[in-house]
Amino acid sequence: MGFFTKDIKTLDDLFVHTLRDIYYAEQQIAKNLPDMVSKATDPSLKSGFESHLAETKNQISRLKQVFQMHGVEATGVECPAIDGILKEASEVTGEVDDKDVLDAALIAAAQAVEHYEITRYGTLIAWANMLDRSDCALILQQNLDEEKATDSKLNTMALRSVNRKAA
Amino acid sequence: MGFFTKDIKTLDDLFVHTLRDIYYAEQQIAKNLPDMVSKATDPSLKSGFESHLAETKNQISRLKQVFQMHGVEATGVECPAIDGILKEASEVTGEVDDKDVLDAALIAAAQAVEHYEITRYGTLIAWANMLDRSDCALILQQNLDEEKATDSKLNTMALRSVNRKAA
Repeated sequence: MGFFTKDIKTLDDLFVHTLRDIYYAEQQIAKNLPDMVSKATDPSLKSGFESHLAETKNQISRLKQVFQMHGVEATGVECPAIDGILKEASEVTGEVDDKDVLDAALIAAAQAVEHYEITRYGTLIAWANMLDRSDCALILQQNLDEEKATDSKLNTMALRSVNRKAA
Repeated sequence: MGFFTKDIKTLDDLFVHTLRDIYYAEQQIAKNLPDMVSKATDPSLKSGFESHLAETKNQISRLKQVFQMHGVEATGVECPAIDGILKEASEVTGEVDDKDVLDAALIAAAQAVEHYEITRYGTLIAWANMLDRSDCALILQQNLDEEKATDSKLNTMALRSVNRKAA
């Protein structure tokens, strides 16, 4: 989309734009997760990031399905939000000197990513239903449910063990 | 913090760093809200953004209180995450041609901001409790409760009227 044109004219345009935003975001997350796996020390955190990488790849496939159902090309658009969230994650975790504190920082960074995805999927589902695309909404709901479950697992890991070891 | 030093050595350092991150973020949000007020058309959305600006200023005061209680200087650190989220909000809303669709885009942008704050305050509260700073956690909880209430109000506005007008 151009910077000097107003290319979003309808809710459908906005839905497709936001779908492309989360499609780009999921791809960036998939690229960044191996680094988080390698930085994590706690075994359950490390394996949690590994299984979330597999989940993320599956979520990208679901997004391709939604693009196809909606009859638009599956392409990403630049998403300064996820770029910023991932940049901050990399900067902060790069400054941590202790491996237990690093695990706590990794969980916080991953939860910021999850919350970005949760808000975008929530919005996309509401708009899909408004556009009479409950078929697309159902697929997007599967991604949303997985992101919420991941956020909740990270919360449990932080409260039960990781934060305690870091303190 | 320097890029080639590992300045975060303890959970306390990480807590203070993240407190400075959200302190910077709240200030950027306060700077951006007047633009969202001016862009919004729906009267309840416009007044919702106006009252959230007042709330944000009060949240900044609470953060100053937490810095003081914890005996550290109230300064911000650069936060690429909120910069990215706000940049994306400004870019997307700048591309929308219809005022009703713009209201829907503004709600989505504001909810992305709220979710960033929700995740950061959730993390800070968990860390404050782990560091035996339940006094700080109580203050931060007030900010978290307000962010969650704002997100929930935005959701209701979107589902009850704004998305319908945009469709």
